[in-house]
Amino acid sequence: MSLLETVHGPERLRELSAEELDTLAAEIRAFLVERVCATGGHLGPNLGVVELTLALHRVFDSPRDRLLWDTGHQSYVHKIVTGRAAGFDKLRRRGGLSGYPNPAESEHDFVENSHASTALSYADGLARADAHHGRTDRAVVAVIGDGAMTGGMAWEALNNIAGGPDRPLVIVLNDNQRSYAPTQGGFADHLGELRSGQPGPPGLFEQLGLAYLGPVDGHDVTALEVALRRARELRRPVVVHVVTEKGRGFPVTERNELDRGHAVKPMDPATGRPLKSSAGPSFTSVFGRELVRIAERRPDVVAITAAMLEPTGLLPMQQRFPQRVVDVGIAEQHAVTMAAGLSLGGVHPVVAIYSTFVNRAFDQLLMDVALHRRAVTFVLDRSGVTGDDGPSHNGMWDMSVLQVVPGLRIAAPRDGTRLAELLAEAVEWEEGPTLVRFPKGPTGEDIPARSTFAGTDVLHRAGPLDVLIVSVGALAPVALQVAEVLWAQGIGATVVDPRWVTPVNPTLADMARRHRLAITVEDNSRMGGVGSTIAQFLRDEGVRTPLREFGIPRRFLQHGSRAEVLSGCGLTAQEIARAVVEEISGPAEDRTGGEAIDFEREMARLIDRERGGETR
Amino acid sequence: MSLLETVHGPERLRELSAEELDTLAAEIRAFLVERVCATGGHLGPNLGVVELTLALHRVFDSPRDRLLWDTGHQSYVHKIVTGRAAGFDKLRRRGGLSGYPNPAESEHDFVENSHASTALSYADGLARADAHHGRTDRAVVAVIGDGAMTGGMAWEALNNIAGGPDRPLVIVLNDNQRSYAPTQGGFADHLGELRSGQPGPPGLFEQLGLAYLGPVDGHDVTALEVALRRARELRRPVVVHVVTEKGRGFPVTERNELDRGHAVKPMDPATGRPLKSSAGPSFTSVFGRELVRIAERRPDVVAITAAMLEPTGLLPMQQRFPQRVVDVGIAEQHAVTMAAGLSLGGVHPVVAIYSTFVNRAFDQLLMDVALHRRAVTFVLDRSGVTGDDGPSHNGMWDMSVLQVVPGLRIAAPRDGTRLAELLAEAVEWEEGPTLVRFPKGPTGEDIPARSTFAGTDVLHRAGPLDVLIVSVGALAPVALQVAEVLWAQGIGATVVDPRWVTPVNPTLADMARRHRLAITVEDNSRMGGVGSTIAQFLRDEGVRTPLREFGIPRRFLQHGSRAEVLSGCGLTAQEIARAVVEEISGPAEDRTGGEAIDFEREMARLIDRERGGETR
Repeated sequence: MSLLETVHGPERLRELSAEELDTLAAEIRAFLVERVCATGGHLGPNLGVVELTLALHRVFDSPRDRLLWDTGHQSYVHKIVTGRAAGFDKLRRRGGLSGYPNPAESEHDFVENSHASTALSYADGLARADAHHGRTDRAVVAVIGDGAMTGGMAWEALNNIAGGPDRPLVIVLNDNQRSYAPTQGGFADHLGELRSGQPGPPGLFEQLGLAYLGPVDGHDVTALEVALRRARELRRPVVVHVVTEKGRGFPVTERNELDRGHAVKPMDPATGRPLKSSAGPSFTSVFGRELVRIAERRPDVVAITAAMLEPTGLLPMQQRFPQRVVDVGIAEQHAVTMAAGLSLGGVHPVVAIYSTFVNRAFDQLLMDVALHRRAVTFVLDRSGVTGDDGPSHNGMWDMSVLQVVPGLRIAAPRDGTRLAELLAEAVEWEEGPTLVRFPKGPTGEDIPARSTFAGTDVLHRAGPLDVLIVSVGALAPVALQVAEVLWAQGIGATVVDPRWVTPVNPTLADMARRHRLAITVEDNSRMGGVGSTIAQFLRDEGVRTPLREFGIPRRFLQHGSRAEVLSGCGLTAQEIARAVVEEISGPAEDRTGGEAIDFEREMARLIDRERGGETR
Repeated sequence: MSLLETVHGPERLRELSAEELDTLAAEIRAFLVERVCATGGHLGPNLGVVELTLALHRVFDSPRDRLLWDTGHQSYVHKIVTGRAAGFDKLRRRGGLSGYPNPAESEHDFVENSHASTALSYADGLARADAHHGRTDRAVVAVIGDGAMTGGMAWEALNNIAGGPDRPLVIVLNDNQRSYAPTQGGFADHLGELRSGQPGPPGLFEQLGLAYLGPVDGHDVTALEVALRRARELRRPVVVHVVTEKGRGFPVTERNELDRGHAVKPMDPATGRPLKSSAGPSFTSVFGRELVRIAERRPDVVAITAAMLEPTGLLPMQQRFPQRVVDVGIAEQHAVTMAAGLSLGGVHPVVAIYSTFVNRAFDQLLMDVALHRRAVTFVLDRSGVTGDDGPSHNGMWDMSVLQVVPGLRIAAPRDGTRLAELLAEAVEWEEGPTLVRFPKGPTGEDIPARSTFAGTDVLHRAGPLDVLIVSVGALAPVALQVAEVLWAQGIGATVVDPRWVTPVNPTLADMARRHRLAITVEDNSRMGGVGSTIAQFLRDEGVRTPLREFGIPRRFLQHGSRAEVLSGCGLTAQEIARAVVEEISGPAEDRTGGEAIDFEREMARLIDRERGGETR
């Protein structure tokens, strides 16, 4: 029996000798490598915190003492030692363990935090709550990476924590010199000075009024315990500076200079090679390639990332034009307003960011970019349903929230060719900000347009003019399947893709008018979504064709594959077609057309006459 | 002729002697006091930066060199010396000078920034743009208050600026030890140590890798010029620490210990008394009073402000329960996630914040509060149209953006009594977050309900069941006027107020079904607004009554009075009634009722039968 098999809760850890702890650490690393290579997940960060997690659980008494992890992706070891090792077989799969702490899984988890830099604020609130209740018998401990410290809200929290010297709070600074990639900026340089360990003047934390202990070797359990015990006894806010090595103890991650195995796909642990061959080019890779093409002809284009160079596809740009890529750290707010500043200075910035993280910079996008009509291009990766990263990583609100931003134009490409086209159009637009959003994963086969009216592509046309299906972005294949299912039941459909979804393309009014029913299909919040706004537009235009929106319901979505999650939201061809059949079987009083009309000739006539738009 | 009358641009300042500068400073203070006491505006901050502004414009060559102000409300002196003194007669009035820098007013203004902590990011972008173009002939200068430095994005920017030692950038830290009120936290304490001027170890800025000059007396033009010249010559990022006195030189603001005249209403400069008597209690004051009542019976209630204690109405709470009010500084992100932490610790937080500033914490509200189903109450003041503070201060997107947050309940009280009721209901709700939003200004007379169905108040009922007017929050008087105008033309109307607008009250479907037309009236973005979501709900419920939304169009609104701005958006009874008449004059095929139905008896029957709801 391995030592690991005897660990069902943190109390067991306190029985182990120093030698046994070393053995256990090695067993945990082997366990992590085996399981995470099989399922995929955040490997590098967890290989770095094995000893730290053991020491924390020996010194502190979880769950009475509160342990918070920032970000939560470094909580795998914590999960293992709190009795959840068995769950790693289904890590990040539907019904299996979450990739982040999860209060539904364990009393040892308090928050589910995948967005960086939040733990200090939670901790400050917990410490204030204990003070409010007069409780002094427990500790609040926040483990935060040096990368997460570059996020502004960590500074806001530090400032407040330092302002409350009577509220004990242990900040464990897990300094692995990285977020995904090496940490950027003056703060990272300062940590380097502290790491050098020369006794010197009071450092930044002490200048702020926090106690400081360290640097401590993060792979020496005994040294860690000494520092953590001392921190606990201080009964005031204290930073314990722990130096760790991301990806430690596994050759594949140790060799990876890019991100030390930050988040891996299922792979062969011997070689580091992926287990599955790729399903064709991803939206991310197409973006990365096209951006370089644009940058080659446009010397004024500069790319910005918030600590996600490789995951957002900027690596080719970085290799080709290293001076024209800026990594600001985990600092979305700064990324966006700095982009506004670049634009004021005559540069065209392309801000590449995950959809879920742009929420951090909503105010900056609205006020600092849009109010100033700055020509900044936002590229939102991981839009819609991402799936395995759970409720906090889905990009399912972007079009609802951002459509209200005056002057912002939003595009949702359905495939790789459209991504290339729309990105180029976005960067050409100089009147204000633009945004291009697409999901995680492969682009799939190209879906050509059979005709185009004022920018709206007609993808499919069959049978009578019964249903107009307005497809948004990457759900085009679903929309086409809906048409197929309908046609099998004798119901005709037209599938169109407006490409630019905000502002609403006026052609949609003409198109909807010719059908008995219009539906919209989007992998975005149904509430306040593209469909809801098209419905409003149709009412404004006096179009009497009823519209029905298909999108994501107003709830958080638990982890699973993208297909599983979409299916759970009813976003499958079968479900949508069923609802359409139900709707359309009512009275056909509003039917204006039928097969008699040649839809595309009619549209061409209308466009030429009323809108002066061009067909191509 | 006064010296001030000879100043039409910054070049004139460079011709003046030290004595003349002192005279000019005195003239500018007198001018500010006279004009801002007449119009209202940000008086205290500008009285504090008179000498600093003169020194900046003598040392730097605006607009070639770029001067940025953070926040923009400290730019009045800058406006005066760049030729805009005459505009102060109509400061913050329609067609007059903006209360912030405004690129449309002057080539000396680059951005219009009323939200704090943005200038360093803009400056970093401008400096990077100059580096991109190889320009080395000009300076970028950002003036930022110590209060604004407590905002996280300032930290993100500092970290990046410090990481680029080859990009010159002058940060003028305008340390008046205040935002509205005294600045909070460890950073403020550190500035106190720096102000004490003892030669000591490298301070926080130097630890980060920035050069530091100071402290400098911010009311000594000569000393300021020496420091600014030196900063300019360093050709690297540098902080010039300038100590100023907010409200300096005017007894009324100097005496004001609360906020030193931060933002004043029109007042008599001799006495400091307001020129107009108040128009009855404001929403803010009703909130402040009711919160104390709730706190008296609920010891677990704690209030949080982001540096806006008095403006958000928390002063009575602070006086009654000083230990139960937390001021986190200009740190909305921390305020919200810290509130989630307090809630995890068994405290019920009430976060009082301006609508326009909650955009800074959208991600935290969504992920850290709502995903965790924390019972946090948000109270949004200055929702809807605020008017005189211009496009960046309107709270016109809150309901559109926040309605997508799963589990969040949103209330919009129409008057003081409803505010008291809804606030109490919000704090009682323990299943997740709630939000109560109301505008700036007086509550007006109470508008009683004549009946209530499942929480939806019926405010008015006259004539046939033609139009259902769904009134949202404080636009109830407008909705009632619409009914009056319609009735004068023989069109019947029912005016209802759902009080809780998110989630949609199902009773609205029953109500809409009984009318020929439904309209919604809200002082919120029409796109993705409450009306748009009610329309979606009616479609889902199979209600065929057409709905028309009235709200704020998708554009930024220039400053003016609230009434002028609302009128500019078509949100007047006349305009709405005109549109309704146009709409309803169509065919009456969907009309189901007419005078024959006793609406309220019918509703009561329905509610009792279908929904099990209660009437009262």
